Amino acid sequence: MNARLNNHNNNSKSPSSRCGNRIYVSGQIYHEIRIPMREIQLSPTRYSDGRIEVNEPLRVYDTSGPWGDPDYHGSVEQGLPPLRRPWILARGDVAEYDGRPVRPEDDGYLSDTHRAAARVRRQDEPGFRLEGITAPRRRPLRASAGHPVTQLWYARQGIITPEMEFVAIRENMRPARDLERPVAALGDETYRPATARRFPQRIPREITPEFVRQEVAAGRAIIPANINHPELEPMIIGRNFLVKINANIGNSAIASSIEEEVEKMRWAISWGADTVMDLSTGKNIHATREWILRNSPVPIGTVPIYQALEKVGGRPEELTWEIYRDTLIEQAEQGVDYFTIHAGVLLRFIPLTARRLTGIVSRGGSIMAKWCLAHHQENFLYTHWDEICEICAAYDVSFSIGDGLRPGSIADANDEAQFAELQVQGELTRRAWEHGVQVMNEGPGHIPLHLIEENMAKQLEWCGEAPFYTLGPLTTDIAPGYDHITSGIGAALIGWYGCALLCYVTPKEHLGLPNKDDVKAGVIAYKIAAHAADLAKGHPAAQYRDDALSKARFEFRWEDQFNLSLDPETARAYHDATLPHESAKTAHFCSMCGPQFCSMRITEDVRRYAAEHGLSEEGALQHGLQQKAKEYREGLKALT
Amino acid sequence: MNARLNNHNNNSKSPSSRCGNRIYVSGQIYHEIRIPMREIQLSPTRYSDGRIEVNEPLRVYDTSGPWGDPDYHGSVEQGLPPLRRPWILARGDVAEYDGRPVRPEDDGYLSDTHRAAARVRRQDEPGFRLEGITAPRRRPLRASAGHPVTQLWYARQGIITPEMEFVAIRENMRPARDLERPVAALGDETYRPATARRFPQRIPREITPEFVRQEVAAGRAIIPANINHPELEPMIIGRNFLVKINANIGNSAIASSIEEEVEKMRWAISWGADTVMDLSTGKNIHATREWILRNSPVPIGTVPIYQALEKVGGRPEELTWEIYRDTLIEQAEQGVDYFTIHAGVLLRFIPLTARRLTGIVSRGGSIMAKWCLAHHQENFLYTHWDEICEICAAYDVSFSIGDGLRPGSIADANDEAQFAELQVQGELTRRAWEHGVQVMNEGPGHIPLHLIEENMAKQLEWCGEAPFYTLGPLTTDIAPGYDHITSGIGAALIGWYGCALLCYVTPKEHLGLPNKDDVKAGVIAYKIAAHAADLAKGHPAAQYRDDALSKARFEFRWEDQFNLSLDPETARAYHDATLPHESAKTAHFCSMCGPQFCSMRITEDVRRYAAEHGLSEEGALQHGLQQKAKEYREGLKALT
Repeated sequence: MNARLNNHNNNSKSPSSRCGNRIYVSGQIYHEIRIPMREIQLSPTRYSDGRIEVNEPLRVYDTSGPWGDPDYHGSVEQGLPPLRRPWILARGDVAEYDGRPVRPEDDGYLSDTHRAAARVRRQDEPGFRLEGITAPRRRPLRASAGHPVTQLWYARQGIITPEMEFVAIRENMRPARDLERPVAALGDETYRPATARRFPQRIPREITPEFVRQEVAAGRAIIPANINHPELEPMIIGRNFLVKINANIGNSAIASSIEEEVEKMRWAISWGADTVMDLSTGKNIHATREWILRNSPVPIGTVPIYQALEKVGGRPEELTWEIYRDTLIEQAEQGVDYFTIHAGVLLRFIPLTARRLTGIVSRGGSIMAKWCLAHHQENFLYTHWDEICEICAAYDVSFSIGDGLRPGSIADANDEAQFAELQVQGELTRRAWEHGVQVMNEGPGHIPLHLIEENMAKQLEWCGEAPFYTLGPLTTDIAPGYDHITSGIGAALIGWYGCALLCYVTPKEHLGLPNKDDVKAGVIAYKIAAHAADLAKGHPAAQYRDDALSKARFEFRWEDQFNLSLDPETARAYHDATLPHESAKTAHFCSMCGPQFCSMRITEDVRRYAAEHGLSEEGALQHGLQQKAKEYREGLKALT
Repeated sequence: MNARLNNHNNNSKSPSSRCGNRIYVSGQIYHEIRIPMREIQLSPTRYSDGRIEVNEPLRVYDTSGPWGDPDYHGSVEQGLPPLRRPWILARGDVAEYDGRPVRPEDDGYLSDTHRAAARVRRQDEPGFRLEGITAPRRRPLRASAGHPVTQLWYARQGIITPEMEFVAIRENMRPARDLERPVAALGDETYRPATARRFPQRIPREITPEFVRQEVAAGRAIIPANINHPELEPMIIGRNFLVKINANIGNSAIASSIEEEVEKMRWAISWGADTVMDLSTGKNIHATREWILRNSPVPIGTVPIYQALEKVGGRPEELTWEIYRDTLIEQAEQGVDYFTIHAGVLLRFIPLTARRLTGIVSRGGSIMAKWCLAHHQENFLYTHWDEICEICAAYDVSFSIGDGLRPGSIADANDEAQFAELQVQGELTRRAWEHGVQVMNEGPGHIPLHLIEENMAKQLEWCGEAPFYTLGPLTTDIAPGYDHITSGIGAALIGWYGCALLCYVTPKEHLGLPNKDDVKAGVIAYKIAAHAADLAKGHPAAQYRDDALSKARFEFRWEDQFNLSLDPETARAYHDATLPHESAKTAHFCSMCGPQFCSMRITEDVRRYAAEHGLSEEGALQHGLQQKAKEYREGLKALT
């Protein structure tokens, strides 16, 4: 494993190491915390009259963790440093204990032969080398003071945790000084689109630690951060913050190895994934998750029922509460930050899906449906919800309440089964809050554009404004191979409406397992959707990047344009495909139109002409406005 | 040229020849017209109890023209058959005349050496072989009966033309019988999203020729169809019809040849482009356009000012009305179906752009701005608008009134300059209608999600519901290399709001000239956006394709799923990347989850179980609904 993973090291370096510098900002409440950002250096603007204007460097949110720090030289075998461990211990409300031993069934009854073939080493084997990091972790932490150890509980007590200050600073990533331009994303105050009125966001001009605390305390935001995942760099999910994206990885019985999955995780976060879900279903589930967690600076989510099912040989009807509970504890001790739990799939809702075009398409949903029918009993996740809450409260595992009855096609969108479950998700949310557990709700799926708004409206209403977390939604079924686009459209829309976390969809959705290229395509499409939503929400840390890039584009600062983009390599490669010479990157024209026909060049001429002819920008503007006002009045007269 | 173009023939065959049969439907008013469609054969559903259910073949709109007909064996050198010529002559209101001679400046003063090097033959050269087609066309047609020969004029007279019946049948492309399922896209009648209420579409359950006539007569729709482009298969652009997409092609001074551009046109329509704009700006402009027109079954649009500028050596200040007028006639005689004309860029609006982040980014807009400032005179396109209308009325060239002041960045969206021009576009629209000319209006550009609605609302209001035609809009500036996605998001949204024609953006936008891969990526992204919009609009010919594909997906009919998709080749390739064996295409599981973990398989089990245990679907549904109703009532009580 060593050699192969190390070979990948260069590939998964974040764009930061190439297109910007890693910097750290210190906390003001907690001076010891260091918030990572990527700072992109910009070249100056050179006006044709010889003037030179400095363009301040620009800071962007950086999800890549230590892997994106050129000064970090750790390896996957070592695992990341336990950043949060001192913060957690300083609270004095957790204790180490002898964790649940790892058992053969945790990796799907993997035989020694299989394990050797898969080149996997388990923690309990000689030669296992997660030293330093795992040594203190062998004994997991658990709440010990008789109260939850969740960020929600602290927030309610009025405590601003280091995690809260960390995310507050992270959200603000402003440039050293703002561009001296109005924030157009906030729009014309005299005009507000109907939808924006319907879903008002309350985003302040500056995200403060106290604002973070308030949002977490109200349940409107969560900071997924298991006390057993100290490698985590905290992030926040809520509709009054930047829209976040999740990348799914995970092996299956058919294909892929641990190495590939760890590498996909690092690859996904290097392109901007804010959280990662490990959806492994084959063998090596425990070991894969251990490697991912120990190397992940972003929250890791799982669907515990997948592993529980492996433990009973893939037969849903043999699932029991005891096996599931054991799996929850196993994963909570490892450090999983959020659990998808399909507790809203109730027995009585299942017949509602029988006449659907595409039945039940959620894996977790279909497993629970099969169990319910086999036993003629209510979903054991629902009946044991309070016990599940107690477990999660003791480790600060957040809930991502699953939508097991989500529609799998446009035809089934917004139907009875889907909304029946959403109502129960709301009930489960309120009960989880009583236990002090952080909660978000999962949503669909396949939804045409005009039915997306209803999803957001009902989720906000029924689930008490807990964060919404949707898969897409895919806005049409007819484009397999391009579902990152069909769903990116829906994701942007629901993100604008207030969805807090967008689960990516890769081009391979419905067709096959994503490889690294697919992971990247999915992440970039969703970074676009999330940013489009942030602009529309008017998040104060959104538009300055668009402005900086557009200014660079207008001024033919090609390298700045590339470096400011979501994917500098692709932008540069596309430019070079038409104009490969280095000189073309300093040329004052672009390849689309050629030198004689460049509208940006002509605009420069227009400005120069206006200046030369005494039409100063200020004067010209004033002049134009007066004329326009006159014209407008005349126009009004003509119309009436 | 022969060899190279013929080599491309297989590449540009429409997916129709591989994934469906070309069929033709005859007219009922005009029996001689034959409307092409692609019919996709589907395999039957095989239930586990042995029952077999036939799945009717499905018809889809086919833009590929004769090139997509396996029985058509014509070559690019011959040009397409003049389908519409008899329809046009039968109206008895046009006459042939000696057209304007082709001059050296039409191809940018191309020297003989250059021409030979570019391997281009001009119409007036010996050896030019557009026989059959061009021989009768050498003498162009023009209105001769003292009235416009536009579809708008006929519609106003109450005349249903063959073109109108053609598009009516084309829009309806229903399957032989509808799937026996409710059209979910029409949504829950009790819930209507705010936006849908704001922009009501009036789409009937069946598109009749009379409905087409009414929409054209009202100016709400256009059928771009120059009488000198008889190869055209008519299509309609209007918000009560299917959303259409445009693909831009064209050479520039930097790169590309005639062969490449003709091939890009055929390639674009093979993937579904409904119209094509030839934006050539380099040499060979006239010849390139001739080859494209003679081989295009879709409407061709141009921006005549680009060619006019070439005729004055690229110096905007030397443009004159006479040169521009000459160019309009040259292109109208060749058969261009719609002209982009930037007549709304008024002198007094230009200073409004001086303080923008990205000034004027429209090429046509910047040319006219430069001319206006150089002469201190009003835009000659505006002052000569009535003469332009007269020319276009005599050939049925539709207007695409340009938006020369569209914003080039998020920062400049929805600003004074943009909306000042839009108001003038409205004035020009009404004046064109007085001349009987068909009109649509071009729109932006770069617009964040929350400001898109305002564009549609103002265009509808100010431009009298003429069709809107937007470039994207791009919803963020930060993703060069992915602007097919940033703009596909905006395109879907504005298409839903009522935008009738979406101008594609390729991944190379802002960076370089698109190659064939980029053209395809742009077209597919926009087919997705248009279809997502059609679903949301509730177009009756939209959702049955989603339903058929989702049914095939659910039943593991892999080949049907591929063939029903927008890009069968990519879908098949992605599937095969994970499961390459042929047997996997008949396997009852998919590669994402593996055989034991397939939610669709589990759903089948749920249905079977329900049937075996006496829970008939009907009974279970009833049962479930009753229980749900009870629960709902209890839930309400608990909440209050």
